[in-house]
Amino acid sequence: MAGGRKASILHLLFFFLLFSSSALSAKRTLRSRQPCKNLVLYFHDIIYNGRNAANATAAIVGAPVWANRTILAGLNHFGDVVVFDDPITLDNNLNSDPVGRAQGIYIYDKKEIYNSWLAFTFVLNSTDYKGTINFVGADPLMNKTRDISVVGGTGDFFMARGIATLMTDAFEGEVYFRLRTDIKLYDCY
Amino acid sequence: MAGGRKASILHLLFFFLLFSSSALSAKRTLRSRQPCKNLVLYFHDIIYNGRNAANATAAIVGAPVWANRTILAGLNHFGDVVVFDDPITLDNNLNSDPVGRAQGIYIYDKKEIYNSWLAFTFVLNSTDYKGTINFVGADPLMNKTRDISVVGGTGDFFMARGIATLMTDAFEGEVYFRLRTDIKLYDCY
Amino acid sequence: MAGGRKASILHLLFFFLLFSSSALSAKRTLRSRQPCKNLVLYFHDIIYNGRNAANATAAIVGAPVWANRTILAGLNHFGDVVVFDDPITLDNNLNSDPVGRAQGIYIYDKKEIYNSWLAFTFVLNSTDYKGTINFVGADPLMNKTRDISVVGGTGDFFMARGIATLMTDAFEGEVYFRLRTDIKLYDCY
Repeated sequence: MAGGRKASILHLLFFFLLFSSSALSAKRTLRSRQPCKNLVLYFHDIIYNGRNAANATAAIVGAPVWANRTILAGLNHFGDVVVFDDPITLDNNLNSDPVGRAQGIYIYDKKEIYNSWLAFTFVLNSTDYKGTINFVGADPLMNKTRDISVVGGTGDFFMARGIATLMTDAFEGEVYFRLRTDIKLYDCY
Repeated sequence: MAGGRKASILHLLFFFLLFSSSALSAKRTLRSRQPCKNLVLYFHDIIYNGRNAANATAAIVGAPVWANRTILAGLNHFGDVVVFDDPITLDNNLNSDPVGRAQGIYIYDKKEIYNSWLAFTFVLNSTDYKGTINFVGADPLMNKTRDISVVGGTGDFFMARGIATLMTDAFEGEVYFRLRTDIKLYDCY
Repeated sequence: MAGGRKASILHLLFFFLLFSSSALSAKRTLRSRQPCKNLVLYFHDIIYNGRNAANATAAIVGAPVWANRTILAGLNHFGDVVVFDDPITLDNNLNSDPVGRAQGIYIYDKKEIYNSWLAFTFVLNSTDYKGTINFVGADPLMNKTRDISVVGGTGDFFMARGIATLMTDAFEGEVYFRLRTDIKLYDCY
């Protein structure tokens, strides 16, 4: 009898430990595929083209030897390097009150089609959010949506990691680009 | 007797909890130092040098004032900035079917010896892998192996983190470089 | 009696599992907001200005079309891209034995005030530390302290993540900048 009870308690123990460890695994899985924070923001890039010095928010600062830095190069802009300081808004209106600035660089990196690569920071300073989010990733412009990595954050975004989905929301000639950024953080502290 | 049994069950409890917590620690340690995913890939960089426009996959887009953008600069190329879109292959053959593209920038950043720094993305699109891996790190070219960071990923590499070990597998003059990349991911979702 | 004992053992089980799981949560919280590693390091940036070739550690390699690469541009240096290989020291003395090099790029990215953005690596090689730390982030120079992200590491900093707080410790004209870097790692392996 005593041996039987001991055995049943051992079974309970195994059951509980099994349960507790599978609960941990489940939590891990839930945490990893459901964003713990989600933000949708727009940023507005106005590239200097020789005639818009007053309101340009970006400029070509590097280019291959066959190109110049006033207008985007041939070969689908291959090799152009752009520095930017773009306003971020909550909606798709360039004239809305900015909640921060998108700052960093992008390059055009393909000869055959428009293709980009970005490394930049969202510097947010609004009543809702104060802090920065850092991004790195490839941006194949011809795709409707492009996923890049959130590689870190500070302030309200302390230690953030996740994915940002970029969409070209609008563009005008080769001067104005509006990017919708759907930020999904999976590591929240 | 009953007290004795209770005590022995408590001992069991302690033993099991100890075991389960040390198992967790062990798992943590195992997880942290044993890669959960390992990939070996090669990428091939052909730098534009004024005569190879057709098959160049990279171009100098920035250089110090004392240099030009047609050929790599003196002082061990210090200050040269290169934009690239290089084919990735599973073996060391430039003519193998590419499984993706390595896209981003590298710089030469040392006056005394060849030394590089990179920030780039592997855009993989094969039957085995669809997704991107983002890298940042120093690349001291004179060392046989160099470790850089995997700072994020998307698609099949959702939220990836880890280390990539770079090796110069071959080079021809200052035009062709082949890099072996041994990617070890330690955070898999 | 036997049923009572069983019940009390079940209570014990619940208590222990509760305790062990809350201990895990507590550890998680502690881990996230208390650095597991802290380093204070200084790096020294001497920008080439046409007259200091011998001891310059950095050079302008990109600039907008209206600027040149010998001296920092107007409009608060907007668009200037700088490649650097700066000595890292344990104290604020440029002549102290370096413990490593800070290598990478920074840009000036705002027309209205001095504002910067950085992506770089600390390559440490001292008796205390061998390995690399990779950083990305916005650097609003006019603020006393600026937080950027530690996005990865290798060697002694295997898989590091965290925050680095930058402070301008000194500057001389537009040639010498000394940055204090307070590195706080929150993910240690």
